[in-house]
Amino acid sequence: MIRKKSYGHPFDTEAVVGSYTPLDGPLPFLTEEGGGRFSCPLDEDAVVYGLGENVRGINKRGWIYENACSDNPNHREDARSLYGAHNFLVVDGAQRFGVFVDYPGKVTFDVGYTDSSVLTIQTEEPDLTLYLIDGDSPEDIIRQFRSLVGRSYIPPKWAFGYGQSRWSYMTADEVREVAARYREAGIPLDAIYLDIDYMEGYKDFTVNQDAFPDLSGLSAELKEQGIRLVPIIDAGVKIEPGYPVYEEGVRQGCFCKDEDGADFVAAVWPGRVHFPDVLNEDARRWFGGYYKVLLEQGIEGFWNDMNEPAIFYSEKGLENAFAQIDTYRTENLDIHTYGALQGLVAGLKNSPEDYRSFYHRHKDGLVRHDRVHNLYGYNMTRAAGEAMEALEPEKRILLFSRSSYIGMHRYGGIWTGDNLSWWSHILLNLQMMPSLNMCGFLYTGADLGGFGGDTTEDLLLRWMALGIFTPLMRNHSATGTRRQELYRFPHVEAFRQIVSLRYVLLPYLYSEYMKAALGDGMYFRPLAFAYPEDAFARRVEDQLMVGESVMIAPVYQQNARGRYVYLPERMKLVRFGGSHQAGQNVLETVQEELLEPGHHYIDVALDEVVFFLRPGHLVPVSRGGRCVADVDFTHLKLLGYPEGGCPYELYDDDGFRKDYDDPAHITRIRVDGSGAIHTEGTAGKEIQWL
Amino acid sequence: MIRKKSYGHPFDTEAVVGSYTPLDGPLPFLTEEGGGRFSCPLDEDAVVYGLGENVRGINKRGWIYENACSDNPNHREDARSLYGAHNFLVVDGAQRFGVFVDYPGKVTFDVGYTDSSVLTIQTEEPDLTLYLIDGDSPEDIIRQFRSLVGRSYIPPKWAFGYGQSRWSYMTADEVREVAARYREAGIPLDAIYLDIDYMEGYKDFTVNQDAFPDLSGLSAELKEQGIRLVPIIDAGVKIEPGYPVYEEGVRQGCFCKDEDGADFVAAVWPGRVHFPDVLNEDARRWFGGYYKVLLEQGIEGFWNDMNEPAIFYSEKGLENAFAQIDTYRTENLDIHTYGALQGLVAGLKNSPEDYRSFYHRHKDGLVRHDRVHNLYGYNMTRAAGEAMEALEPEKRILLFSRSSYIGMHRYGGIWTGDNLSWWSHILLNLQMMPSLNMCGFLYTGADLGGFGGDTTEDLLLRWMALGIFTPLMRNHSATGTRRQELYRFPHVEAFRQIVSLRYVLLPYLYSEYMKAALGDGMYFRPLAFAYPEDAFARRVEDQLMVGESVMIAPVYQQNARGRYVYLPERMKLVRFGGSHQAGQNVLETVQEELLEPGHHYIDVALDEVVFFLRPGHLVPVSRGGRCVADVDFTHLKLLGYPEGGCPYELYDDDGFRKDYDDPAHITRIRVDGSGAIHTEGTAGKEIQWL
Repeated sequence: MIRKKSYGHPFDTEAVVGSYTPLDGPLPFLTEEGGGRFSCPLDEDAVVYGLGENVRGINKRGWIYENACSDNPNHREDARSLYGAHNFLVVDGAQRFGVFVDYPGKVTFDVGYTDSSVLTIQTEEPDLTLYLIDGDSPEDIIRQFRSLVGRSYIPPKWAFGYGQSRWSYMTADEVREVAARYREAGIPLDAIYLDIDYMEGYKDFTVNQDAFPDLSGLSAELKEQGIRLVPIIDAGVKIEPGYPVYEEGVRQGCFCKDEDGADFVAAVWPGRVHFPDVLNEDARRWFGGYYKVLLEQGIEGFWNDMNEPAIFYSEKGLENAFAQIDTYRTENLDIHTYGALQGLVAGLKNSPEDYRSFYHRHKDGLVRHDRVHNLYGYNMTRAAGEAMEALEPEKRILLFSRSSYIGMHRYGGIWTGDNLSWWSHILLNLQMMPSLNMCGFLYTGADLGGFGGDTTEDLLLRWMALGIFTPLMRNHSATGTRRQELYRFPHVEAFRQIVSLRYVLLPYLYSEYMKAALGDGMYFRPLAFAYPEDAFARRVEDQLMVGESVMIAPVYQQNARGRYVYLPERMKLVRFGGSHQAGQNVLETVQEELLEPGHHYIDVALDEVVFFLRPGHLVPVSRGGRCVADVDFTHLKLLGYPEGGCPYELYDDDGFRKDYDDPAHITRIRVDGSGAIHTEGTAGKEIQWL
Repeated sequence: MIRKKSYGHPFDTEAVVGSYTPLDGPLPFLTEEGGGRFSCPLDEDAVVYGLGENVRGINKRGWIYENACSDNPNHREDARSLYGAHNFLVVDGAQRFGVFVDYPGKVTFDVGYTDSSVLTIQTEEPDLTLYLIDGDSPEDIIRQFRSLVGRSYIPPKWAFGYGQSRWSYMTADEVREVAARYREAGIPLDAIYLDIDYMEGYKDFTVNQDAFPDLSGLSAELKEQGIRLVPIIDAGVKIEPGYPVYEEGVRQGCFCKDEDGADFVAAVWPGRVHFPDVLNEDARRWFGGYYKVLLEQGIEGFWNDMNEPAIFYSEKGLENAFAQIDTYRTENLDIHTYGALQGLVAGLKNSPEDYRSFYHRHKDGLVRHDRVHNLYGYNMTRAAGEAMEALEPEKRILLFSRSSYIGMHRYGGIWTGDNLSWWSHILLNLQMMPSLNMCGFLYTGADLGGFGGDTTEDLLLRWMALGIFTPLMRNHSATGTRRQELYRFPHVEAFRQIVSLRYVLLPYLYSEYMKAALGDGMYFRPLAFAYPEDAFARRVEDQLMVGESVMIAPVYQQNARGRYVYLPERMKLVRFGGSHQAGQNVLETVQEELLEPGHHYIDVALDEVVFFLRPGHLVPVSRGGRCVADVDFTHLKLLGYPEGGCPYELYDDDGFRKDYDDPAHITRIRVDGSGAIHTEGTAGKEIQWL
């Protein structure tokens, strides 16, 4: 059951769409301490799940999280905020409940940090709504929560293919080269991403005509090869006379205001910008309308960036800093003044003071930005999502964002932002996935290989072996770092095998994604959700369930030849890659082995991928392809561990239309005692054992 | 055998004291590529050990290290340099050899980063000396290397006690409070560290008379309680008329010069400073002499800091920065100019340009600092070490440094610098230990609990459980972070048990340290060194041998209840702590269990310490004490796993004198077939089974 209680004058975030029971009287589970503060004891065995995009483990205990959307490229284990604010958690201990703190400013979750046996929640101001959910299990609670906040975004099927990105591919020819080299190497590819340099002077909805003289032509040419271009869109609109988006935004009053009512001046890539006031419905419609400029050039997908919003500096902040710097000129700068100078310049960026200095014209009145800060990325992406709905009502468009709040999951996915080429970020990628899924963000993934820092081939191989399971599977890296397109490394064949396996597994992965999205379920689950009676499974932080049939346990340590894996039950180890012949279909490299429950050390070579199949479960696979459109979803093979009938619901559709709920998309598979496969459904799937 | 070959005009670092065979003709093992570049293939199974103070694993493969002493408080896994330059590594593969690159500027070790199958070494200029060592095993090679570079520093025995530090204990009363609260809590303590604020205005060899009106008295008062004060000494000498160290240094020409021959002006804590020219013998003697000021106040230990040397800014660098900032005032700062402004201010710190702008007056002539950069911390600590030898010839003084080069290990230890309260830094601490030991640095340890960032109680408990095995065992943290003195946490009893265990184990730990130091051996060893035939042991990155009898496998993951452990042979699991009665001697909590070789998951509670005892080996223990002086080293107990006689050489001495080689310090222990203990030696030890 879901109970709602409001405090003070809550802002309507529009996160919630479902139903709940208004609550009078005291809260269950939590102690109300007043002033936006709530707490509860955590018994020794309690596990705390959730909080979406944050660092640390699946179990969030032992740290303090400050959910305030932040452009923070240092995903260190002591980070308190990343790009998203996902204020939902589940306590699974002596008490079992979920809580969603619907509050658009900063929320602090002290999950046994100050006192290891206490959870404390604190909103910055005491105006909020709490939703409290009890249920039979964490999964039950999560499903109720998800029905409260609405169905998760569903991208086109091609967006489950592999994408290559870089800050930045600078010209059309460079993009063509990436496509050509992938095709030459025989490594599948569905998308190439355009980072900020495709624009003219970092101006949204423009294209640099010198570098990309014919984006429509390039888009069509690549689409012929099964590859789509996905350009970036930034939050800030450059202040430049003659630039239509700027001029129209000013004219129509669509930008955020400063305290004097003038358009607020901040700076990002192009220098000085205004921010579209996406919390205002008219401004949202106005800004969203511009995506049409790129749709008309054949673009079918976008990523929205810098929408925390990131601020390099504000005009006023910079003036103050210059004035302060002048006072340091004649001093003997010691630890204090030198530290102040360093802090002054570094602190220009994403300054809390700046966030307190501009305003939104929301339907309920003027609101200072910091009070609704966590809604900006949500509403920028909502602007795009609502526009797509209007512009392309029959067609799925790829859309994902850096910043987000719960509610945005209905409009688009997210990527997990500017991670680093760190081994520990493979594990962080894994651990963040179920936390995001709980909060509704199913279409998500990390920058494979790492965005900042320099990658190594072994890191990239290991990361890709996890990445083939994440719905958004994209390799992305920052300017100035070592290049990490897969064809640049000596072991191209190993990369080809690994990425090909993604396409082999697509019938299963897509089916599991769609069922999770349509049924308010999770695509990635902690082991404990599948094995609630297994005390050890509750402690496993580096393995995940992917859909209903598969458990993964990727290697994430350098120079390791394998890893320890915990099996909660008898499972089948399925191994791909390894000592194959050049050009061999990865499907033909499969090796299977039955393993007993318990602890195992499993060898996994750099060119191998392993996963674990649950008894009585199936994994439908294809023969792969060089892009999603190439994959034959009709003639499928089954990987299975047939015990007890193996009922499996396969979901498939054309991948473009939005008729998600058409029962014709379901094929029911069943295996009888003799091992014969029976299918039921109208999709005409032909399915055999591998 | 050790072979030497020189290139160009090498600078005499005085790292080497032992003998070698001059080599004519081509090098074995390495290909000479010219210009200070050397390379060799790395076969798939080769492990590369060494490089001392650096990030990443025991096996250094898969990264590029740039040994250039750096004040780098971000020990991220992509760091290329930390505070020390330890240019010794061992390749253990199809080829087996050690190489010491004796070159005092920057040396780059590309250990399979650019190409996973190639090791490349590159010195910044082609003037260097290589020492190549072959041998029967990595340990054999390391022992030869260590005899080449001379015996490792030996601290007084009290320095094996636990120390509490903080940036900073601000007054004598605050120091008294730390001592009193440790004694009240019953947690042993041997040292309290004084960080920069004990000085007057950050001036070396001064004491703030307001805050510490009677340092001699305080020192004596604490020594009565078995606690010693250990003050910090910084590299930079404040420019302040009337300050004797400054005035005398100027008068005697003891500071580094700029290109015009004037005393070079940089800045650190006090603002503008000069750097003592510690590469000059006279200046070294002059600077070292000042330690007497503190010795005379009862001080018996020092830590030398900021001696990379760290530079906040140089006078010229700051002037240039201010001028450049002026050009930005009128611009629309975009990604490029904004980035440049940020880089300009952040780049004031430890700027390569500054390191190229000052000079040392070395006996062989004027030398530009960057060419000998890695020798500065070494020679600052040598200045202190040589002074101690002159001032206190009969007494050991505690001395350790932040920056170092091989050779400095003869004069003092090192701590591993400004780490963070990160779980991954527990593992980094573990992995760095054997790498440092190889290079001669035996007296070493990390800031337990983490220097930067905010600790949590569970992190600190787990880190302490590793820290009790590191020779330098110190809890240290930065200003502004969460306080981490052990008595501040709820589970004081758990901390008491863990720290008490350090004192219980001291007879073993001290004995193993002394044997390693006197025999050019290692105190911490990778598993592969003890089990060279065990292919899996070569891959273990999170367990260590401590001395000859013990293997450790600390827990380093949050919310874990235990961990996987690999046993190369049958071993005895020894467990301390856990469900004990309040105040119980930790020795009485011991539990033992025999485990078979192979993979195990071992439960370890937050208040427990486990280690693993090798068959046929002994661990002599005491009943502990509140400080080292309290520990009874005469009546000892034995933990053992008696198979095959258990010969053990116990080393003990008074802990103050330098008569290290007196054979009377050795007691030989043997167990006969009936389990009776026999001892041989003049130290009068009384030893029984526990």
